[in-house]
Amino acid sequence: MEARPTTATDPTTATDPAPAQRARRSGYRRLPVEQRREQLIAVALELFASRPPEEVGLDDVAEAAGASRPLVYRYFAGGKQQLYEAALRTAADELTSRFAVPLTGTPSEQLAAVLDGYFAFVAEHDAGYSALLRGGSVVETARTSAIVDDVRRAALRRTLRHLGVREAGPRLTLLVRSWIAVVEGASLSWLDEGRTLPVDGLRDWLVDQFTAMAAATALHDPQTAEVLTALLALEGPRADRAERLRAALEAR
Amino acid sequence: MEARPTTATDPTTATDPAPAQRARRSGYRRLPVEQRREQLIAVALELFASRPPEEVGLDDVAEAAGASRPLVYRYFAGGKQQLYEAALRTAADELTSRFAVPLTGTPSEQLAAVLDGYFAFVAEHDAGYSALLRGGSVVETARTSAIVDDVRRAALRRTLRHLGVREAGPRLTLLVRSWIAVVEGASLSWLDEGRTLPVDGLRDWLVDQFTAMAAATALHDPQTAEVLTALLALEGPRADRAERLRAALEAR
Repeated sequence: MEARPTTATDPTTATDPAPAQRARRSGYRRLPVEQRREQLIAVALELFASRPPEEVGLDDVAEAAGASRPLVYRYFAGGKQQLYEAALRTAADELTSRFAVPLTGTPSEQLAAVLDGYFAFVAEHDAGYSALLRGGSVVETARTSAIVDDVRRAALRRTLRHLGVREAGPRLTLLVRSWIAVVEGASLSWLDEGRTLPVDGLRDWLVDQFTAMAAATALHDPQTAEVLTALLALEGPRADRAERLRAALEAR
Repeated sequence: MEARPTTATDPTTATDPAPAQRARRSGYRRLPVEQRREQLIAVALELFASRPPEEVGLDDVAEAAGASRPLVYRYFAGGKQQLYEAALRTAADELTSRFAVPLTGTPSEQLAAVLDGYFAFVAEHDAGYSALLRGGSVVETARTSAIVDDVRRAALRRTLRHLGVREAGPRLTLLVRSWIAVVEGASLSWLDEGRTLPVDGLRDWLVDQFTAMAAATALHDPQTAEVLTALLALEGPRADRAERLRAALEAR
């Protein structure tokens, strides 16, 4: 359980601070508990974004927040692991909220809009995103894996909704899960290579991947075949990408 | 560093054992050091295959091997973590060796042969495979992740070799990596669902996925376009799957 202090005074302010410090510290002393908690999480997220979690200590978080280590511990009695999990949960909620793009435009346009939100998130959270999905981090636990799985489930639900599917069979589910894995892998590669691949190209590649992977699944599953036919019809004159895919598959 | 004892006597044999026990134990006492080590790893692999690694203790390994806990510790001074890593390395080497199918038959046939080997491995190592790729296990570390990455790199090299590619550009590399991620995801889903999806169908789905994903990548990358054209030509009259993919992509 999380420690929720009712007062949040900082022992380091007991001595008389310089005016600038006093201003900052008294400002933070007045922060309500929930706001202070959010501020610590925001600071932690910023640090986890630029460095792998194992290289971020509670002292760094305290310093960046202008707080004392005991104060950080008062909010996160479980120490760094608890702070990391809280930060991760916040990031996961934020990412999930980005999946909610309007259901307007062609299916490709909707997918592209979701991917733009995803890549913006990846760019902001860089090292933290990378460490988390790559695994093997000391801060990774069954709980952090569960948080990541929640995001994947939300992405699955959202994608099925965009596809107009209420009940997905095992093959359609496998298709969408696989495509989500491809999105994750592509964004990790993008970070690995110092973001040199243009993100627009990567996004369009992922949209094309979805169509192609759906076509491969349609050969094995009537439900997916139906969904794909409906999608292509909705693309209307914009189905030129599918046409180009067909051309690429022509034996010469 | 690993403890490599020069003698491997079992303290539990100090008392006079019953004849059956004596036979078994004296048999095992004569095992040369390297063989004993291999036996312990084999026993550990079997246990990790049926249960998640965090549920397998050194006592279980000792019992299943007919050895004492101190003996296991003499071989694996680092305890369970070291034994787990040694077992994982052995499994990784075994999996990598299965990638080496003959370069005969059409590209699809070669890919199908590699996948058959892969699924056989997954079936044998079940829980261990699952725990490892899913992450969040207590035994997962930067070292175990590195072993998994080695296997992925070997799979990448091997696939590129089957494609006849010496130097893969970033997009072709991304394609193969993405497909490998799809293979991993599909095999995890297969285990999750109690192996109810027929493995032959899953294998053919993955072969079709490769073709489809290559087609989508070909729209963005001349090198992949060239590789795909060459592959389809090699399929010859067997390119009917590609023809069916084309049909699935036709807007109606």
